[in-house]
Amino acid sequence: MKLVVAVVQDQDSNRLSNALTKNDFRATKLASTGGFLRSGNTTFLIGVDDGLVPKLMDLIRENCRSREQMVAPVSPMGGNADSYIPYPVEVEVGGATIFVLPIEQFHHF
Amino acid sequence: MKLVVAVVQDQDSNRLSNALTKNDFRATKLASTGGFLRSGNTTFLIGVDDGLVPKLMDLIRENCRSREQMVAPVSPMGGNADSYIPYPVEVEVGGATIFVLPIEQFHHF
Amino acid sequence: MKLVVAVVQDQDSNRLSNALTKNDFRATKLASTGGFLRSGNTTFLIGVDDGLVPKLMDLIRENCRSREQMVAPVSPMGGNADSYIPYPVEVEVGGATIFVLPIEQFHHF
Ligand code: NI
Ligand code: NI
Ligand code: NI
Repeated sequence: MKLVVAVVQDQDSNRLSNALTKNDFRATKLASTGGFLRSGNTTFLIGVDDGLVPKLMDLIRENCRSREQMVAPVSPMGGNADSYIPYPVEVEVGGATIFVLPIEQFHHF
Repeated sequence: MKLVVAVVQDQDSNRLSNALTKNDFRATKLASTGGFLRSGNTTFLIGVDDGLVPKLMDLIRENCRSREQMVAPVSPMGGNADSYIPYPVEVEVGGATIFVLPIEQFHHF
Repeated sequence: MKLVVAVVQDQDSNRLSNALTKNDFRATKLASTGGFLRSGNTTFLIGVDDGLVPKLMDLIRENCRSREQMVAPVSPMGGNADSYIPYPVEVEVGGATIFVLPIEQFHHF
């Protein structure tokens, strides 16, 4: 058994969530932030049998493809004018960062 | 030392939290979601010495027992009528899913 | 590659976040709670190459130093009068608890 930690952009998070349910993977979701323009993302925790890791990776890849998108400027909340970008920019949206962790014990009560 | 990741239903989360404090375990808690009817849960991160893992598992088992309970219907927020269940159903509440992870380094500043 | 899980008090979280960005570390942040007086904290998930672990530890140590501070009494929300402290107390603020986890696979889509 492995613990898969997958950080997924909010744009893809619902689609992945549905795909996981349909394929009998059980995921715990945590709201998270980070990355360019502070866009929101979701951290999935998924316990998975070793033999199903490749299938899970395929599901994530299919539902969280990284792609380019124009993003309107966001005025800086914290007043940090240095980080203000006054014109639309092309950013990478979607995508997922995935860590597959070994586990020593798994319990379910 | 191990890192214990325990996903606990909200119904049991306060009780577990108190039990951990009383027994000198220090836990970090993260709000999480997932599972049937999208009920909320809490993800506990607990750093624990190897020798105390069994005691911690006992504490979680005692405070997070899974049991059946009738749940009133919830109208679907997202408008997904397929998933709407118009009558009370018996669901499993409580319970915990626990991963014990090996760690390579532990630091406290 | 390692997955670093760092629990950081809210007082130090922005400073650490900026330091990580400046040094090209990419972090995912999760809001978390726990510890004395229920003060908020942030859990950072940071994927890092093995050779950069010491540099990352230095950054966290420099930005999250634990120190003493007087804290005004907080009236108990849950009505638990036992835990109410009616005078200012000196508490440890700042600080970080860090777990360095081995990973079996890393993917980025
Ligand atoms: Ni990328
Ligand atoms: Ni169950
Ligand atoms: Ni301390």
